[in-house]
Amino acid sequence: MIYFDNSATTKPYKDVLDAFVTVSQAYFANPSSIHSKGGESERLLQQARKTVSQLLHVKPQEIIFTSGGTEGNNTAIKGVAMQYATRGKHLITSAVEHASSFETFHALETLGFDVTYLPVDEEGRISVDELKAAIREDTILVSLISVNNETGTIGPIEEVGKLLQEYKKIYFHVDHVQGIGKVPLSFTKAGVDLCTISGHKVHGLKGTGILYKRESVLLSPLLTGGEQEGSVRAGTENVAGIVSLAKALRMTFEYMDAGVRNMEKITSYMRDELEKLPSVVINTPKTQCAPHILNFSVEDVKPEVLIHALDQKEIYVSTRSACASKQTGASRVLLAMGMKEKRASSAIRLSLSYENTMEEAEIVLRELKKAVTELQEIMR
Amino acid sequence: MIYFDNSATTKPYKDVLDAFVTVSQAYFANPSSIHSKGGESERLLQQARKTVSQLLHVKPQEIIFTSGGTEGNNTAIKGVAMQYATRGKHLITSAVEHASSFETFHALETLGFDVTYLPVDEEGRISVDELKAAIREDTILVSLISVNNETGTIGPIEEVGKLLQEYKKIYFHVDHVQGIGKVPLSFTKAGVDLCTISGHKVHGLKGTGILYKRESVLLSPLLTGGEQEGSVRAGTENVAGIVSLAKALRMTFEYMDAGVRNMEKITSYMRDELEKLPSVVINTPKTQCAPHILNFSVEDVKPEVLIHALDQKEIYVSTRSACASKQTGASRVLLAMGMKEKRASSAIRLSLSYENTMEEAEIVLRELKKAVTELQEIMR
Ligand SMILES: Cc1ncc(COP(=O)(O)O)c(C=O)c1O
Ligand SMILES: Cc1ncc(COP(=O)(O)O)c(C=O)c1O
Repeated sequence: MIYFDNSATTKPYKDVLDAFVTVSQAYFANPSSIHSKGGESERLLQQARKTVSQLLHVKPQEIIFTSGGTEGNNTAIKGVAMQYATRGKHLITSAVEHASSFETFHALETLGFDVTYLPVDEEGRISVDELKAAIREDTILVSLISVNNETGTIGPIEEVGKLLQEYKKIYFHVDHVQGIGKVPLSFTKAGVDLCTISGHKVHGLKGTGILYKRESVLLSPLLTGGEQEGSVRAGTENVAGIVSLAKALRMTFEYMDAGVRNMEKITSYMRDELEKLPSVVINTPKTQCAPHILNFSVEDVKPEVLIHALDQKEIYVSTRSACASKQTGASRVLLAMGMKEKRASSAIRLSLSYENTMEEAEIVLRELKKAVTELQEIMR
Repeated sequence: MIYFDNSATTKPYKDVLDAFVTVSQAYFANPSSIHSKGGESERLLQQARKTVSQLLHVKPQEIIFTSGGTEGNNTAIKGVAMQYATRGKHLITSAVEHASSFETFHALETLGFDVTYLPVDEEGRISVDELKAAIREDTILVSLISVNNETGTIGPIEEVGKLLQEYKKIYFHVDHVQGIGKVPLSFTKAGVDLCTISGHKVHGLKGTGILYKRESVLLSPLLTGGEQEGSVRAGTENVAGIVSLAKALRMTFEYMDAGVRNMEKITSYMRDELEKLPSVVINTPKTQCAPHILNFSVEDVKPEVLIHALDQKEIYVSTRSACASKQTGASRVLLAMGMKEKRASSAIRLSLSYENTMEEAEIVLRELKKAVTELQEIMR
């Protein structure tokens, strides 16, 4: 099988799963229990926190373990909104955020918050000038996706962070779920206050995630209850999941240089080859795009049909964001980039991991070309 | 080692962990992906949902998979509050709820909700009459713990459910985290609208849980984003965790009859033996209590010191709720039961699983007696 749907989810590394099993068996005690078995679990948990904090160049107490990217985005966005509502009720985000941010802002609108959804250019990028113009006296949060999950477009995170240095009362949250391990981001350099990461996108396990929260930022907790995770995220800690996530992140950073070069080579080759096909138009920008995503539209071919044809050859690709994949019709993200309905509703997303090969790419290209030709003939 | 801290967390069954590993490896695709690998994950997920719904005698679409008990309680309580706030802002709960409910009600108070915290009698039970008297025109939710996690006291869930049949506009949520697999509860018979269950208390994995939601109840989602779990709980599904949870629940129900009898025998024997000690006073009521918990106070002995002494013998017990175990001072639950500060701050909780044995109980009793005698001598 050829799996080119790594932006939807990745296969967990064997070592990650092994770590999960070992911890689940040998360190099952509740880290909050005061007996020595609880102490052992607690030490493992803190070791994982330290590992993650070192990999991300932040403090251990700035790491909050979550159940995934959706919880991270919800915790950061709702957490800032509810905590600082008395200071102001204006929030800024963009039109191309992942549903777990986008719908969260919609939910906050029903609670009386005022949200600016910044438009994007044809490459899917917001304008920093427009962002600046949108800032008001009562703005408390800017939340942006660093790497778009449909197109791979890299947003101007560092520039935004620099701008926001001038606005001490505005917090900056970044959805880095698609960026981690693919596009470097220094939280300090980019002035990021909060950053969401998900385990299962970097060969970690589903149900694991990280929210970075700068120490000085207060969050109204989404999950209230016990005092776990600095009282920001209550609930018995998934110690095995947390340890396995630390491992996944360490392995990701170890393999990143070679992995990114490999993915760049493959996506750039595939882009060149796909561009030669008359009916294909590439939706991923040529520059300032992540190495692992290549999005394109095929005229007159329903993406579901193309996916099905590839499926027969054990090639797995997707249309758009997995969590919206059962919706039919045009992609919200591609429409926001100014594409016509037709192009925005016929997109295919290839998304790689470090481990995909040029040989796989060749097969995918060959089968894609065959399928497109056949399907277009049927349509005519 | 003798592990008598099963109310804090349990050791996962081997089959549960095996299921997790198999699914993580062979069915890692995102169930929302439209290719056939996504379809396979989706089918597994729906199979798990069906299994759980059959075990609980409810409909598959009434099962929401969560990250644990804390998320379940938060989703149910905040979800009803936010959804039905226009109908009324009065909520009823009790003084002896788990922190994940109790603190959630406190959080809702800061949002303008009015909460009645029902008092309890010396056995830790609310009065149904007092509950009835507390009901107002604007009451929208009653939320109660079925089995108290510190004392094992069983609450009058069926009676409350019966009473609430007369109030069609009030939803009834039950925190059944400590009850599942120990104290039978029929959601239909007890008129339960929402019920929280956690995986790691029944030999499932941490980071897994179930919220039962009667089909007709609407919830304002805590985690907004994708359309997973009937749009009530967004986020890529932890398919392996979900399948492993279905397995844990099935095994729990299979072993329940024999397991409960075994635990009853052990706790009742230990109760009798402990009662003979002049310095021990039992905090768990004699009737209408769960089979797995035995809570008692030892006069003049700091519980941390006693726990440490047992720890030396590889016996693991706890003071109170794990998530509050690092707080010192008296237990909120025991104080609510009318105990004096001294007794409420010297409690030890023994909590069993189906697998604990009478031989273990004998050892624990022997070491407990020894430790108590020694410690009291030192104190004198
Ligand atoms: C950019 C982005 N943000 C957030 C998420 C949500 O993460 P999770 O699936 O872990 O909930 C995803 C993936 O689903 C994503 O691609
Ligand atoms: C009665 C009760 N409710 C809720 C919870 C919270 O569940 P979890 O630890 O899965 O978040 C617990 C245990 O911690 C509990 O004992």
